[in-house]
Amino acid sequence: MFVIVTYDVGEKRVNKVRKHLKKYLIWVQNSVFEGEITEGKLEKCLMELSRKINKHEDSIYVYKIKIPSQITKDIIGEEKNVDDMFL
Amino acid sequence: MFVIVTYDVGEKRVNKVRKHLKKYLIWVQNSVFEGEITEGKLEKCLMELSRKINKHEDSIYVYKIKIPSQITKDIIGEEKNVDDMFL
Repeated sequence: MFVIVTYDVGEKRVNKVRKHLKKYLIWVQNSVFEGEITEGKLEKCLMELSRKINKHEDSIYVYKIKIPSQITKDIIGEEKNVDDMFL
Repeated sequence: MFVIVTYDVGEKRVNKVRKHLKKYLIWVQNSVFEGEITEGKLEKCLMELSRKINKHEDSIYVYKIKIPSQITKDIIGEEKNVDDMFL
């Protein structure tokens, strides 16, 4: 499965969210992680993640595509790499 | 086709990018637009968009899924609606 995780999280929590997601996915843009992951690992990742956010303030979207080849990605401008985005 | 557009754009240009994308897609999170769009309209949208950014500083990713039913979306926490996000 291929997933894209986007988030809009309060300043106080955003580093915790990023550190957590970095264990499972690739940080590709300021508020975006992506990558291939199993159903089981994603479930574990999201369960832990939901304990790190404030559900009344923060917003996390998890887009899931069962077959990775069904999604393509175009880039306009820079392709950010994780080193650009210090934690 | 279903698309997700995520962006990391300089402060000076971000409003222009949002105003432009709002003509084609739905603003669903701080740096995320999504929606169904035809190949032709997307091409027009992106051509215009690339003239509004600084390609050496800004980053725009366009995730494309040919058949919308092949993608699902889970939400943890708040579902932002565009009124929360003033332009």
